[in-house]
Amino acid sequence: MPESPRTLRLRLSYDGSDFHGWQVQPGLTTVQQTVQDALAALSGEPVHLHGSGRTDAGVHALAQVAHCEVQSLRIPLPSLQRALNSHLPASIRIDAVDEVAAGFDARRDAVSKLYRYRIWRDAVCPPFLRRYVYHHPYPLNEVAMVAAAPRFSGSHDFRSFAATPAKGAPAVATTVRTVLRSELHRQGPELVYEVEGRGFLHHMVRNLLGFLLDVGRGTRRGEEIPTVLAAANRRAAGPTAPACGLYLVHVRYDHNIDGKNGVHGL
Amino acid sequence: MPESPRTLRLRLSYDGSDFHGWQVQPGLTTVQQTVQDALAALSGEPVHLHGSGRTDAGVHALAQVAHCEVQSLRIPLPSLQRALNSHLPASIRIDAVDEVAAGFDARRDAVSKLYRYRIWRDAVCPPFLRRYVYHHPYPLNEVAMVAAAPRFSGSHDFRSFAATPAKGAPAVATTVRTVLRSELHRQGPELVYEVEGRGFLHHMVRNLLGFLLDVGRGTRRGEEIPTVLAAANRRAAGPTAPACGLYLVHVRYDHNIDGKNGVHGL
Repeated sequence: MPESPRTLRLRLSYDGSDFHGWQVQPGLTTVQQTVQDALAALSGEPVHLHGSGRTDAGVHALAQVAHCEVQSLRIPLPSLQRALNSHLPASIRIDAVDEVAAGFDARRDAVSKLYRYRIWRDAVCPPFLRRYVYHHPYPLNEVAMVAAAPRFSGSHDFRSFAATPAKGAPAVATTVRTVLRSELHRQGPELVYEVEGRGFLHHMVRNLLGFLLDVGRGTRRGEEIPTVLAAANRRAAGPTAPACGLYLVHVRYDHNIDGKNGVHGL
Repeated sequence: MPESPRTLRLRLSYDGSDFHGWQVQPGLTTVQQTVQDALAALSGEPVHLHGSGRTDAGVHALAQVAHCEVQSLRIPLPSLQRALNSHLPASIRIDAVDEVAAGFDARRDAVSKLYRYRIWRDAVCPPFLRRYVYHHPYPLNEVAMVAAAPRFSGSHDFRSFAATPAKGAPAVATTVRTVLRSELHRQGPELVYEVEGRGFLHHMVRNLLGFLLDVGRGTRRGEEIPTVLAAANRRAAGPTAPACGLYLVHVRYDHNIDGKNGVHGL
Protein backbone atom coordinates (compact mmCIF):
# COMPACT_ATOMS: atom_id res chain seq x y z
CA MET A 1 0.00 0.00 0.00
CA PRO A 2 1.48 3.41 -0.97
CA GLU A 3 2.23 5.92 1.76
CA SER A 4 -0.08 8.91 1.86
CA PRO A 5 1.29 12.06 0.23
CA ARG A 6 2.76 14.91 2.29
CA THR A 7 1.77 18.54 1.74
CA LEU A 8 4.73 20.89 1.80
CA ARG A 9 4.60 24.66 2.10
CA LEU A 10 7.48 26.74 0.75
CA ARG A 11 8.35 30.37 1.31
CA LEU A 12 10.55 31.71 -1.47
CA SER A 13 12.14 34.93 -2.68
CA TYR A 14 13.10 35.63 -6.26
CA ASP A 15 14.58 38.23 -8.55
CA GLY A 16 11.87 38.64 -11.16
CA SER A 17 14.26 40.15 -13.73
CA ASP A 18 15.47 36.69 -14.68
CA PHE A 19 12.04 35.10 -15.24
CA HIS A 20 9.00 35.30 -17.47
CA GLY A 21 6.88 35.58 -14.34
CA TRP A 22 5.67 32.91 -11.95
CA GLN A 23 3.32 30.87 -14.11
CA VAL A 24 4.51 27.94 -16.26
CA GLN A 25 4.60 28.91 -19.95
CA PRO A 26 5.80 26.53 -22.65
CA GLY A 27 9.34 27.32 -23.79
CA LEU A 28 9.89 30.11 -21.24
CA THR A 29 11.83 30.17 -17.99
CA THR A 30 9.40 30.81 -15.15
CA VAL A 31 9.72 30.62 -11.38
CA GLN A 32 7.04 27.94 -10.98
CA GLN A 33 8.67 25.74 -13.64
CA THR A 34 12.15 26.18 -12.20
CA VAL A 35 11.09 25.22 -8.66
CA GLN A 36 8.93 22.33 -9.91
CA ASP A 37 11.92 20.99 -11.83
CA ALA A 38 14.10 21.15 -8.69
CA LEU A 39 11.43 19.38 -6.63
CA ALA A 40 11.02 16.71 -9.31
CA ALA A 41 14.78 16.18 -9.51
CA LEU A 42 14.92 15.57 -5.75
CA SER A 43 11.83 13.41 -5.44
CA GLY A 44 11.96 11.50 -8.70
CA GLU A 45 8.28 12.22 -9.32
CA PRO A 46 6.48 15.00 -11.19
CA VAL A 47 5.50 17.75 -8.74
CA HIS A 48 2.93 20.47 -9.26
CA LEU A 49 3.62 23.64 -7.29
CA HIS A 50 0.69 25.94 -6.45
CA GLY A 51 1.59 29.56 -5.68
CA SER A 52 -0.43 32.00 -3.59
CA GLY A 53 -0.83 33.87 -6.87
CA ARG A 54 1.01 34.70 -10.06
CA THR A 55 3.59 37.42 -10.41
CA ASP A 56 4.29 38.99 -13.83
CA ALA A 57 7.59 38.98 -15.68
CA GLY A 58 10.04 41.28 -13.89
CA VAL A 59 8.06 41.38 -10.62
CA HIS A 60 10.05 40.36 -7.55
CA ALA A 61 9.04 38.40 -4.46
CA LEU A 62 10.38 38.73 -0.94
CA ALA A 63 8.07 36.03 0.40
CA GLN A 64 5.94 34.18 -2.11
CA VAL A 65 4.22 31.15 -0.59
CA ALA A 66 3.46 27.94 -2.48
CA HIS A 67 2.39 24.40 -1.69
CA CYS A 68 2.81 21.01 -3.31
CA GLU A 69 2.03 17.37 -2.63
CA VAL A 70 4.85 14.88 -2.68
CA GLN A 71 4.66 11.14 -2.47
CA SER A 72 8.21 9.86 -2.32
CA LEU A 73 10.16 12.82 -0.91
CA ARG A 74 11.12 11.65 2.58
CA ILE A 75 14.17 13.73 3.42
CA PRO A 76 14.06 15.96 6.53
CA LEU A 77 12.86 19.52 5.89
CA PRO A 78 16.10 21.43 6.67
CA SER A 79 17.98 19.12 4.30
CA LEU A 80 15.24 19.61 1.70
CA GLN A 81 15.64 23.38 1.89
CA ARG A 82 19.41 23.10 1.39
CA ALA A 83 19.02 20.55 -1.40
CA LEU A 84 16.47 22.70 -3.22
CA ASN A 85 18.66 25.78 -2.94
CA SER A 86 21.61 23.92 -4.34
CA HIS A 87 19.46 22.78 -7.30
CA LEU A 88 18.03 26.24 -7.94
CA PRO A 89 19.69 29.23 -9.59
CA ALA A 90 20.78 31.93 -7.10
CA SER A 91 17.96 34.14 -8.43
CA ILE A 92 15.44 31.96 -6.51
CA ARG A 93 15.92 31.10 -2.83
CA ILE A 94 13.82 28.82 -0.68
CA ASP A 95 13.69 30.69 2.64
CA ALA A 96 11.62 28.14 4.54
CA VAL A 97 9.86 24.81 4.11
CA ASP A 98 7.35 23.20 6.41
CA GLU A 99 4.85 20.38 6.29
CA VAL A 100 1.19 21.33 6.59
CA ALA A 101 -2.08 19.47 6.96
CA ALA A 102 -3.48 17.88 3.82
CA GLY A 103 -5.85 20.30 2.13
CA PHE A 104 -3.79 23.43 2.73
CA ASP A 105 -4.01 25.64 -0.35
CA ALA A 106 -1.51 28.51 -0.75
CA ARG A 107 -3.91 30.56 -2.87
CA ARG A 108 -7.31 29.80 -1.38
CA ASP A 109 -6.17 29.97 2.26
CA ALA A 110 -4.32 33.28 1.86
CA VAL A 111 -6.04 35.91 4.00
CA SER A 112 -4.24 38.86 2.45
CA LYS A 113 -1.25 39.84 0.36
CA LEU A 114 1.05 42.80 0.70
CA TYR A 115 2.69 44.36 -2.34
CA ARG A 116 5.31 47.11 -2.37
CA TYR A 117 6.31 49.39 -5.25
CA ARG A 118 9.61 51.30 -5.13
CA ILE A 119 10.11 54.51 -7.13
CA TRP A 120 13.61 56.01 -7.17
CA ARG A 121 13.27 59.81 -7.26
CA ASP A 122 16.89 61.04 -7.43
CA ALA A 123 18.32 62.23 -10.74
CA VAL A 124 20.74 59.30 -10.89
CA CYS A 125 19.75 55.72 -10.05
CA PRO A 126 22.61 53.63 -8.58
CA PRO A 127 23.59 50.87 -11.04
CA PHE A 128 23.02 48.26 -8.32
CA LEU A 129 19.34 49.17 -8.06
CA ARG A 130 18.50 49.37 -11.74
CA ARG A 131 16.57 46.08 -11.71
CA TYR A 132 14.96 46.67 -8.32
CA VAL A 133 13.31 50.09 -8.47
CA TYR A 134 11.44 52.15 -11.04
CA HIS A 135 13.54 55.22 -11.78
CA HIS A 136 11.32 58.26 -12.13
CA PRO A 137 13.38 61.44 -11.59
CA TYR A 138 10.83 63.81 -13.17
CA PRO A 139 8.67 66.30 -11.23
CA LEU A 140 5.76 64.78 -9.34
CA ASN A 141 3.32 66.35 -6.92
CA GLU A 142 4.07 63.83 -4.21
CA VAL A 143 1.74 65.47 -1.72
CA ALA A 144 -1.21 64.91 -4.06
CA MET A 145 -0.13 61.30 -4.64
CA VAL A 146 0.18 60.59 -0.89
CA ALA A 147 -3.30 62.07 -0.35
CA ALA A 148 -4.82 60.07 -3.23
CA ALA A 149 -3.39 56.63 -2.33
CA PRO A 150 -5.83 55.76 0.53
CA ARG A 151 -8.80 56.38 -1.78
CA PHE A 152 -8.28 52.87 -3.19
CA SER A 153 -9.07 51.30 0.22
CA GLY A 154 -12.26 49.36 0.62
CA SER A 155 -14.27 46.87 -1.41
CA HIS A 156 -14.71 48.14 -4.95
CA ASP A 157 -15.19 46.87 -8.46
CA PHE A 158 -11.59 47.30 -9.71
CA ARG A 159 -12.36 46.47 -13.34
CA SER A 160 -10.91 49.85 -14.45
CA PHE A 161 -7.59 48.81 -12.91
CA ALA A 162 -7.46 45.24 -14.26
CA ALA A 163 -5.61 44.15 -17.37
CA THR A 164 -7.98 43.57 -20.25
CA PRO A 165 -8.25 39.75 -20.53
CA ALA A 166 -6.44 38.22 -23.51
CA LYS A 167 -8.71 37.14 -26.38
CA GLY A 168 -10.31 33.82 -25.56
CA ALA A 169 -9.16 33.94 -21.93
CA PRO A 170 -11.91 33.15 -19.40
CA ALA A 171 -13.28 36.28 -17.71
CA VAL A 172 -12.81 36.37 -13.92
CA ALA A 173 -15.99 35.65 -11.94
CA THR A 174 -15.95 39.05 -10.29
CA THR A 175 -13.73 42.12 -10.45
CA VAL A 176 -14.72 43.22 -6.95
CA ARG A 177 -11.73 43.19 -4.62
CA THR A 178 -11.08 44.38 -1.08
CA VAL A 179 -8.11 46.65 -0.44
CA LEU A 180 -7.26 46.75 3.26
CA ARG A 181 -4.55 49.40 3.08
CA SER A 182 -3.24 51.65 0.31
CA GLU A 183 -0.47 53.98 1.37
CA LEU A 184 2.29 55.99 -0.24
CA HIS A 185 5.25 57.46 1.64
CA ARG A 186 8.68 58.95 1.13
CA GLN A 187 11.64 56.92 2.34
CA GLY A 188 14.89 58.74 1.60
CA PRO A 189 15.28 58.95 -2.18
CA GLU A 190 12.35 56.57 -2.68
CA LEU A 191 8.63 56.93 -2.96
CA VAL A 192 7.22 53.69 -1.61
CA TYR A 193 3.69 52.47 -2.30
CA GLU A 194 2.28 49.67 -0.14
CA VAL A 195 -1.01 48.00 -0.83
CA GLU A 196 -2.51 45.12 1.11
CA GLY A 197 -5.60 43.32 -0.11
CA ARG A 198 -7.50 40.06 0.06
CA GLY A 199 -6.69 39.51 -3.59
CA PHE A 200 -5.69 41.42 -6.67
CA LEU A 201 -6.66 41.40 -10.32
CA HIS A 202 -4.07 40.96 -13.06
CA HIS A 203 -1.85 44.11 -13.28
CA MET A 204 -3.97 45.75 -10.59
CA VAL A 205 -1.13 47.03 -8.37
CA ARG A 206 0.79 48.41 -11.36
CA ASN A 207 -2.39 50.07 -12.64
CA LEU A 208 -3.21 51.65 -9.27
CA LEU A 209 0.33 53.00 -9.18
CA GLY A 210 0.08 54.14 -12.80
CA PHE A 211 -2.94 56.23 -11.84
CA LEU A 212 -1.13 57.68 -8.79
CA LEU A 213 1.74 58.67 -11.09
CA ASP A 214 -0.77 60.53 -13.29
CA VAL A 215 -2.00 62.30 -10.16
CA GLY A 216 1.64 63.24 -9.45
CA ARG A 217 2.00 64.60 -12.97
CA GLY A 218 -1.14 66.65 -12.52
CA THR A 219 -3.01 65.04 -15.41
CA ARG A 220 -5.46 63.31 -13.04
CA ARG A 221 -6.82 64.16 -9.57
CA GLY A 222 -7.24 61.88 -6.57
CA GLU A 223 -10.86 63.03 -6.32
CA GLU A 224 -11.57 61.29 -9.64
CA ILE A 225 -10.90 57.83 -8.17
CA PRO A 226 -14.57 57.05 -7.28
CA THR A 227 -15.62 58.02 -10.82
CA VAL A 228 -12.85 55.93 -12.38
CA LEU A 229 -13.87 52.93 -10.25
CA ALA A 230 -17.55 53.44 -11.17
CA ALA A 231 -16.69 53.50 -14.89
CA ALA A 232 -15.61 49.83 -14.66
CA ASN A 233 -13.60 50.38 -17.82
CA ARG A 234 -9.83 49.98 -18.26
CA ARG A 235 -9.70 53.07 -20.47
CA ALA A 236 -11.01 55.22 -17.61
CA ALA A 237 -7.84 54.68 -15.55
CA GLY A 238 -4.18 55.37 -16.36
CA PRO A 239 -1.04 53.65 -17.64
CA THR A 240 0.48 50.44 -16.24
CA ALA A 241 3.64 51.12 -14.21
CA PRO A 242 6.75 49.05 -15.11
CA ALA A 243 7.21 45.67 -13.41
CA CYS A 244 10.71 46.18 -12.01
CA GLY A 245 9.62 48.31 -9.02
CA LEU A 246 7.09 45.78 -7.75
CA TYR A 247 7.53 43.23 -4.94
CA LEU A 248 5.23 40.63 -3.44
CA VAL A 249 6.26 41.25 0.18
CA HIS A 250 4.11 39.01 2.32
CA VAL A 251 1.23 36.53 2.21
CA ARG A 252 -0.81 36.26 5.37
CA TYR A 253 -2.60 33.10 6.51
CA ASP A 254 -5.13 32.63 9.27
CA HIS A 255 -3.32 30.47 11.73
CA ASN A 256 -0.27 32.59 12.32
CA ILE A 257 2.27 31.23 14.70
CA ASP A 258 5.35 33.00 13.42
CA GLY A 259 4.40 36.67 13.78
CA LYS A 260 7.02 37.78 11.30
CA ASN A 261 5.84 35.80 8.36
CA GLY A 262 2.34 34.89 9.27
CA VAL A 263 2.91 31.31 8.24
CA HIS A 264 3.35 28.52 10.72
CA GLY A 265 6.95 27.43 10.70
CA LEU A 266 7.92 29.74 7.86
CA MET B 1 43.73 78.82 -33.80
CA PRO B 2 42.21 75.83 -31.99
CA GLU B 3 40.90 76.33 -28.47
CA SER B 4 42.94 74.71 -25.73
CA PRO B 5 41.65 71.37 -24.49
CA ARG B 6 39.65 71.06 -21.25
CA THR B 7 40.43 68.46 -18.62
CA LEU B 8 37.33 66.79 -17.22
CA ARG B 9 37.12 64.70 -14.09
CA LEU B 10 34.34 62.12 -13.74
CA ARG B 11 33.12 60.22 -10.73
CA LEU B 12 31.31 57.05 -11.71
CA SER B 13 29.68 54.00 -10.20
CA TYR B 14 29.26 50.69 -11.97
CA ASP B 15 27.96 47.18 -11.56
CA GLY B 16 31.01 45.10 -12.40
CA SER B 17 28.96 41.97 -13.16
CA ASP B 18 28.18 43.31 -16.62
CA PHE B 19 31.77 44.11 -17.65
CA HIS B 20 35.11 42.50 -18.37
CA GLY B 21 36.65 44.91 -15.93
CA TRP B 22 37.68 48.54 -16.38
CA GLN B 23 40.50 48.30 -18.89
CA VAL B 24 39.93 48.37 -22.67
CA GLN B 25 40.34 44.88 -24.17
CA PRO B 26 39.76 44.17 -27.86
CA GLY B 27 36.42 42.50 -28.48
CA LEU B 28 35.24 42.71 -24.86
CA THR B 29 32.81 45.07 -23.14
CA THR B 30 34.69 47.06 -20.54
CA VAL B 31 33.79 50.09 -18.45
CA GLN B 32 36.57 52.27 -19.87
CA GLN B 33 35.57 51.45 -23.44
CA THR B 34 31.88 52.02 -22.80
CA VAL B 35 32.42 55.45 -21.22
CA GLN B 36 34.98 56.45 -23.88
CA ASP B 37 32.43 55.57 -26.57
CA ALA B 38 29.78 57.74 -24.89
CA LEU B 39 32.22 60.66 -24.59
CA ALA B 40 33.26 60.25 -28.22
CA ALA B 41 29.62 60.14 -29.35
CA LEU B 42 28.93 63.43 -27.56
CA SER B 43 32.09 65.27 -28.57
CA GLY B 44 32.62 63.90 -32.06
CA GLU B 45 36.29 63.27 -31.28
CA PRO B 46 38.15 60.23 -29.97
CA VAL B 47 38.50 60.50 -26.18
CA HIS B 48 40.92 58.60 -23.97
CA LEU B 49 39.67 58.10 -20.43
CA HIS B 50 42.23 57.55 -17.64
CA GLY B 51 40.96 55.83 -14.52
CA SER B 52 42.42 56.09 -11.01
CA GLY B 53 43.20 52.41 -11.51
CA ARG B 54 41.82 49.27 -13.07
CA THR B 55 39.14 47.08 -11.59
CA ASP B 56 38.87 43.41 -12.55
CA ALA B 57 35.93 41.70 -14.21
CA GLY B 58 33.05 41.49 -11.72
CA VAL B 59 34.48 44.12 -9.34
CA HIS B 60 32.10 46.99 -8.60
CA ALA B 61 32.75 50.69 -8.09
CA LEU B 62 30.84 53.11 -5.90
CA ALA B 63 33.11 56.02 -6.83
CA GLN B 64 35.74 55.38 -9.45
CA VAL B 65 37.43 58.60 -10.61
CA ALA B 66 38.72 59.18 -14.13
CA HIS B 67 39.92 62.08 -16.24
CA CYS B 68 40.03 62.90 -19.93
CA GLU B 69 40.98 65.76 -22.21
CA VAL B 70 38.39 67.04 -24.63
CA GLN B 71 38.83 69.57 -27.40
CA SER B 72 35.41 70.19 -28.88
CA LEU B 73 33.06 69.29 -26.02
CA ARG B 74 31.64 72.67 -24.95
CA ILE B 75 28.33 71.78 -23.31
CA PRO B 76 27.77 72.81 -19.66
CA LEU B 77 28.78 70.21 -17.09
CA PRO B 78 25.33 69.35 -15.65
CA SER B 79 24.04 68.81 -19.19
CA LEU B 80 27.12 66.73 -19.96
CA GLN B 81 26.41 64.46 -16.97
CA ARG B 82 22.80 63.96 -18.08
CA ALA B 83 23.81 63.42 -21.71
CA LEU B 84 26.45 60.86 -20.74
CA ASN B 85 24.02 58.97 -18.52
CA SER B 86 21.47 58.83 -21.29
CA HIS B 87 24.14 57.40 -23.63
CA LEU B 88 25.39 54.86 -21.09
CA PRO B 89 23.80 51.57 -20.02
CA ALA B 90 22.12 51.75 -16.58
CA SER B 91 24.93 49.55 -15.22
CA ILE B 92 27.27 52.60 -15.36
CA ARG B 93 26.29 55.94 -13.86
CA ILE B 94 28.18 59.21 -14.01
CA ASP B 95 27.61 60.63 -10.52
CA ALA B 96 29.54 63.87 -11.02
CA VAL B 97 31.62 65.74 -13.59
CA ASP B 98 33.84 68.75 -13.05
CA GLU B 99 36.53 70.60 -14.91
CA VAL B 100 39.99 70.53 -13.40
CA ALA B 101 43.31 72.25 -14.09
CA ALA B 102 45.32 70.91 -17.01
CA GLY B 103 47.73 68.27 -15.79
CA PHE B 104 45.35 66.61 -13.31
CA ASP B 105 45.89 62.85 -13.44
CA ALA B 106 43.30 60.57 -11.83
CA ARG B 107 45.84 57.83 -11.16
CA ARG B 108 49.00 59.75 -10.29
CA ASP B 109 47.26 62.38 -8.13
CA ALA B 110 45.27 59.86 -6.09
CA VAL B 111 46.40 60.01 -2.46
CA SER B 112 44.66 56.82 -1.41
CA LYS B 113 41.98 54.36 -2.38
CA LEU B 114 39.44 52.61 -0.24
CA TYR B 115 38.19 49.13 -1.13
CA ARG B 116 35.42 47.19 0.59
CA TYR B 117 34.72 43.46 0.44
CA ARG B 118 31.30 42.10 1.48
CA ILE B 119 30.88 38.51 2.68
CA TRP B 120 27.33 37.26 3.27
CA ARG B 121 27.37 34.86 6.24
CA ASP B 122 23.75 33.70 6.51
CA ALA B 123 22.78 30.25 5.20
CA VAL B 124 20.65 31.78 2.45
CA CYS B 125 21.77 34.73 0.32
CA PRO B 126 18.88 36.96 -0.87
CA PRO B 127 18.50 36.69 -4.66
CA PHE B 128 18.85 40.47 -4.96
CA LEU B 129 22.36 40.39 -3.50
CA ARG B 130 23.75 37.46 -5.45
CA ARG B 131 25.91 39.67 -7.69
CA TYR B 132 26.90 42.07 -4.91
CA VAL B 133 28.28 39.97 -2.08
CA TYR B 134 30.38 36.83 -1.73
CA HIS B 135 28.18 34.18 -0.13
CA HIS B 136 30.20 32.19 2.38
CA PRO B 137 27.85 30.46 4.87
CA TYR B 138 30.43 27.96 6.13
CA PRO B 139 32.04 28.08 9.59
CA LEU B 140 34.73 30.73 10.03
CA ASN B 141 36.63 31.83 13.10
CA GLU B 142 35.64 35.46 12.66
CA VAL B 143 37.42 36.55 15.83
CA ALA B 144 40.74 35.31 14.43
CA MET B 145 40.04 37.02 11.11
CA VAL B 146 39.19 40.35 12.78
CA ALA B 147 42.42 40.12 14.81
CA ALA B 148 44.52 39.26 11.74
CA ALA B 149 43.24 41.98 9.39
CA PRO B 150 45.23 44.94 10.84
CA ARG B 151 48.49 42.98 10.36
CA PHE B 152 48.48 44.03 6.71
CA SER B 153 48.82 47.71 7.71
CA GLY B 154 52.05 49.50 6.95
CA SER B 155 54.55 49.61 4.09
CA HIS B 156 55.44 46.11 2.98
CA ASP B 157 56.57 44.20 -0.06
CA PHE B 158 53.19 42.69 -1.05
CA ARG B 159 54.60 40.42 -3.79
CA SER B 160 53.08 37.36 -2.07
CA PHE B 161 49.66 38.95 -2.47
CA ALA B 162 50.03 40.11 -6.08
CA ALA B 163 48.77 38.22 -9.11
CA THR B 164 51.62 36.52 -10.93
CA PRO B 165 52.20 38.70 -14.03
CA ALA B 166 51.01 37.18 -17.30
CA LYS B 167 53.76 35.80 -19.53
CA GLY B 168 55.47 38.64 -21.37
CA ALA B 169 53.73 41.30 -19.24
CA PRO B 170 56.10 43.98 -17.90
CA ALA B 171 56.95 43.47 -14.22
CA VAL B 172 55.88 46.31 -11.94
CA ALA B 173 58.75 48.54 -10.79
CA THR B 174 58.20 47.72 -7.15
CA THR B 175 55.81 45.51 -5.21
CA VAL B 176 56.13 47.63 -2.06
CA ARG B 177 52.80 49.23 -1.14
CA THR B 178 51.52 51.19 1.84
CA VAL B 179 48.33 50.04 3.53
CA LEU B 180 46.92 52.78 5.72
CA ARG B 181 44.07 50.78 7.23
CA SER B 182 43.03 47.13 7.09
CA GLU B 183 39.97 46.28 9.10
CA LEU B 184 37.36 43.57 9.26
CA HIS B 185 34.04 43.89 11.08
CA ARG B 186 30.62 42.29 11.37
CA GLN B 187 27.67 44.25 10.07
CA GLY B 188 24.44 42.31 10.52
CA PRO B 189 24.65 39.21 8.33
CA GLU B 190 27.80 40.51 6.63
CA LEU B 191 31.48 40.36 7.34
CA VAL B 192 32.91 43.54 5.84
CA TYR B 193 36.58 44.05 5.03
CA GLU B 194 37.83 47.57 4.39
CA VAL B 195 41.31 48.34 3.21
CA GLU B 196 42.71 51.76 2.38
CA GLY B 197 46.06 52.17 0.73
CA ARG B 198 48.14 54.49 -1.40
CA GLY B 199 47.98 51.94 -4.18
CA PHE B 200 47.34 48.25 -4.73
CA LEU B 201 48.89 45.50 -6.82
CA HIS B 202 46.81 43.41 -9.21
CA HIS B 203 44.42 41.12 -7.25
CA MET B 204 45.96 42.37 -4.00
CA VAL B 205 42.71 43.07 -2.12
CA ARG B 206 41.19 39.74 -3.15
CA ASN B 207 44.40 37.95 -2.14
CA LEU B 208 44.55 39.66 1.27
CA LEU B 209 40.94 38.62 1.82
CA GLY B 210 41.69 35.11 0.55
CA PHE B 211 44.34 34.79 3.22
CA LEU B 212 41.98 36.12 5.91
CA LEU B 213 39.43 33.49 4.85
CA ASP B 214 42.11 30.83 5.35
CA VAL B 215 42.68 32.26 8.83
CA GLY B 216 38.93 31.94 9.42
CA ARG B 217 39.01 28.32 8.26
CA GLY B 218 41.89 27.63 10.66
CA THR B 219 44.31 26.53 7.94
CA ARG B 220 46.46 29.66 8.43
CA ARG B 221 47.18 31.93 11.38
CA GLY B 222 47.30 35.72 11.50
CA GLU B 223 50.73 35.48 13.12
CA GLU B 224 52.09 34.05 9.87
CA ILE B 225 51.45 37.28 7.97
CA PRO B 226 54.98 38.74 8.48
CA THR B 227 56.51 35.46 7.25
CA VAL B 228 54.20 35.34 4.25
CA LEU B 229 55.09 38.94 3.36
CA ALA B 230 58.80 38.19 3.78
CA ALA B 231 58.55 35.20 1.42
CA ALA B 232 57.72 37.58 -1.46
CA ASN B 233 56.22 34.61 -3.27
CA ARG B 234 52.62 34.23 -4.44
CA ARG B 235 52.60 30.57 -3.40
CA ALA B 236 53.28 31.55 0.22
CA ALA B 237 49.88 33.25 0.55
CA GLY B 238 46.35 31.90 -0.01
CA PRO B 239 43.60 31.73 -2.61
CA THR B 240 42.12 34.70 -4.48
CA ALA B 241 38.64 35.62 -3.22
CA PRO B 242 35.89 35.96 -5.88
CA ALA B 243 35.42 39.35 -7.56
CA CYS B 244 31.71 39.85 -6.87
CA GLY B 245 32.14 40.94 -3.22
CA LEU B 246 34.63 43.70 -4.02
CA TYR B 247 33.93 47.44 -4.36
CA LEU B 248 36.16 50.40 -5.11
CA VAL B 249 34.52 52.74 -2.60
CA HIS B 250 36.46 55.98 -2.69
CA VAL B 251 39.50 57.66 -4.24
CA ARG B 252 41.01 60.45 -2.19
CA TYR B 253 42.83 63.45 -3.67
CA ASP B 254 44.89 66.10 -1.96
CA HIS B 255 42.83 69.19 -2.44
CA ASN B 256 39.59 68.06 -0.94
CA ILE B 257 36.83 70.56 -0.92
CA ASP B 258 33.89 68.22 -0.81
CA GLY B 259 34.48 66.25 2.37
CA LYS B 260 32.17 63.47 1.31
CA ASN B 261 33.94 62.49 -1.83
CA GLY B 262 37.33 64.02 -1.42
CA VAL B 263 37.24 65.44 -4.91
CA HIS B 264 36.60 69.10 -5.61
CA GLY B 265 33.16 69.47 -7.05
CA LEU B 266 32.51 65.76 -7.15
